[in-house]
Amino acid sequence: MNKNRLEAFSDGVLAIILTVMVLEMKVPHGEQFSALLPVLPVFLSYVLSFVYLGIYWNNHHHMLHLAGKVSGGILWANLHLLFWLSLLPFTTGWMGENHFAAAAMCLYGVNLLCCAIAYFILQQRIIAAQGPGSVLAHAIGPDIKGKLSPVLYLLGIVTSFVSPWLSGAFYVVTACMWLVPDRRVEREVMKHAGPGESGA
Amino acid sequence: MNKNRLEAFSDGVLAIILTVMVLEMKVPHGEQFSALLPVLPVFLSYVLSFVYLGIYWNNHHHMLHLAGKVSGGILWANLHLLFWLSLLPFTTGWMGENHFAAAAMCLYGVNLLCCAIAYFILQQRIIAAQGPGSVLAHAIGPDIKGKLSPVLYLLGIVTSFVSPWLSGAFYVVTACMWLVPDRRVEREVMKHAGPGESGA
Amino acid sequence: MNKNRLEAFSDGVLAIILTVMVLEMKVPHGEQFSALLPVLPVFLSYVLSFVYLGIYWNNHHHMLHLAGKVSGGILWANLHLLFWLSLLPFTTGWMGENHFAAAAMCLYGVNLLCCAIAYFILQQRIIAAQGPGSVLAHAIGPDIKGKLSPVLYLLGIVTSFVSPWLSGAFYVVTACMWLVPDRRVEREVMKHAGPGESGA
Amino acid sequence: MNKNRLEAFSDGVLAIILTVMVLEMKVPHGEQFSALLPVLPVFLSYVLSFVYLGIYWNNHHHMLHLAGKVSGGILWANLHLLFWLSLLPFTTGWMGENHFAAAAMCLYGVNLLCCAIAYFILQQRIIAAQGPGSVLAHAIGPDIKGKLSPVLYLLGIVTSFVSPWLSGAFYVVTACMWLVPDRRVEREVMKHAGPGESGA
Repeated sequence: MNKNRLEAFSDGVLAIILTVMVLEMKVPHGEQFSALLPVLPVFLSYVLSFVYLGIYWNNHHHMLHLAGKVSGGILWANLHLLFWLSLLPFTTGWMGENHFAAAAMCLYGVNLLCCAIAYFILQQRIIAAQGPGSVLAHAIGPDIKGKLSPVLYLLGIVTSFVSPWLSGAFYVVTACMWLVPDRRVEREVMKHAGPGESGA
Repeated sequence: MNKNRLEAFSDGVLAIILTVMVLEMKVPHGEQFSALLPVLPVFLSYVLSFVYLGIYWNNHHHMLHLAGKVSGGILWANLHLLFWLSLLPFTTGWMGENHFAAAAMCLYGVNLLCCAIAYFILQQRIIAAQGPGSVLAHAIGPDIKGKLSPVLYLLGIVTSFVSPWLSGAFYVVTACMWLVPDRRVEREVMKHAGPGESGA
Repeated sequence: MNKNRLEAFSDGVLAIILTVMVLEMKVPHGEQFSALLPVLPVFLSYVLSFVYLGIYWNNHHHMLHLAGKVSGGILWANLHLLFWLSLLPFTTGWMGENHFAAAAMCLYGVNLLCCAIAYFILQQRIIAAQGPGSVLAHAIGPDIKGKLSPVLYLLGIVTSFVSPWLSGAFYVVTACMWLVPDRRVEREVMKHAGPGESGA
Repeated sequence: MNKNRLEAFSDGVLAIILTVMVLEMKVPHGEQFSALLPVLPVFLSYVLSFVYLGIYWNNHHHMLHLAGKVSGGILWANLHLLFWLSLLPFTTGWMGENHFAAAAMCLYGVNLLCCAIAYFILQQRIIAAQGPGSVLAHAIGPDIKGKLSPVLYLLGIVTSFVSPWLSGAFYVVTACMWLVPDRRVEREVMKHAGPGESGA
């Protein structure tokens, strides 16, 4: 099976999810700057989800680079991940529309958690397909970030009914944590690619 | 003619159809979880159509891998398939909006049936282009799933006015049947690709 | 400059235009089949524009296959074509919404005419870049279809205020004329590609 | 890391932004030509933003062609650029909806300015990654256009509250300045590609 087409399809879906989110920012009718004020929460949630999608695209890109054979199971695990990511425009829109209300913050966290679980399943599938001595398993190592994220999402979900702002802080912190690129995987990619392939 | 560009274009259209469907899930105005309740049927129909599109992408991917020359006829047969798939966001949305009403269940089944017929036509076109000893014809073999699906869709269409839920069950069962990947074609793909190409 | 990226970008835009058009078919609120009746004209105009976009994608594909160097001029001529094609969802939607009213039929024809002119400019740009002995100029030959189309569009535009149905007939006939693939160019592509490349 | 996938993802996002903008042109309800009049400002702003996106796609294409290694930093600088470009449908729509009101002209200019800054950051990142003797730094040379654009955007922003039309003139003039392709970079690309690669 062809890894390139899986990458291309995932790229397409991610690119569309990213751009579709901006459609949730409805053009306001007033012509004063004040007319933009109600759009501000939608804008802020757009920024957060944009960053998350960027992180997923980035990590997905690295992970698939280290993947070998693409079996039917990996293909469906990938579609499963895309499914949860495709719900982000909806949960992002609801969060923005309701000015970060408790229920919306909770649902957004659940969505992020499902994405993280789906990503983990895809990662395990690829590692299992590579068998012992998996280059991906070696690259992610103890995977501290990957284990910390679901905990932070859960904290965000739990605190959403106490303080939506605290909940939001957890989601922002998690995103910031991932913005620092995963040097270990990147290093492994470089090694794996060899000197001649790195710029191609 | 270039098979890669046909694949890339089909991938693009499928990725957009997938993501456009999520736009039918309008962000509700209330800020309670109860505000999500009316969206639930739209969500469930989204899940079903997402799975169907995943199945079509998967099978389309395998089939084109075994296709040789891409003639003008194959190109139009492919566009014909994309046409019926492109109507899925509409029929899915109508089904969800009307909480699985009889007419909507019927129309959804007709849409699925048209997709299946269009897929069959495309398959026959590719086999005809390959002539006797077609590697695709050999790979699909008796094609039991491919022959069973239209029957199940027809049953879903006929029963939609008796019980929409029975009708829906037929569509769900058909999707589940296809979720199990087509081992025969996959095996043929592996053989056809040779040992060196399988991970590329 | 890279022809592949030009093709990929054009494919992306065409795929999105195709799928965005289906969003003009708003999901009706009633749950009877009769609720679909007002959508019928929008559906019919969608079918026509889908066929036109398929034709453009097909011909664009052949033409670029025969193109050599992609200069800045060709790139902008291509964007110019994509601009007019991108207006099709709007003019198609207006035509469908207004049940093929005179003004909408006229505007749709103007849009088709602009697409044809933009396509012609792009074709001339590529031929000019290839200089004398242009393989594309040889392939299109007298280009009877290409010269007949603008005339048929003009007839559709002129007759739109006499009889919108007659106008529509001109647009349908032109689409049918193009559905028959351009054997001459296809033949040239095959020759140009050589026996080994035809299936790749 | 893979430059091709970065290009493909950027192409996808740019193609979708381009096409999503046309969705802001809502199909009018009347069936007379006069019904199109309120859409005219939205159409004009669409044309301007279409040209800007074409310019960005064109320049981005040239720049990445000269880029060597794609590091994590370059990847995020690219996503940063895509973020500001993705806001264009919103600011374009607001400008069109409000018939070029002062605040909308100002916001549009701010958006263009942010895009220009993000593009500059990406350019600097690539040059820094190439180290001394950077082929990109050599290709852009004194980069007069790149330095003039932000000044023109700033003039557009400042004059927007004096005369929205003057402000718009600055944005149109800047677009026209860029429509002339960047011969210096193009020349360098040709040199860099070698004679055999120029048509591929």
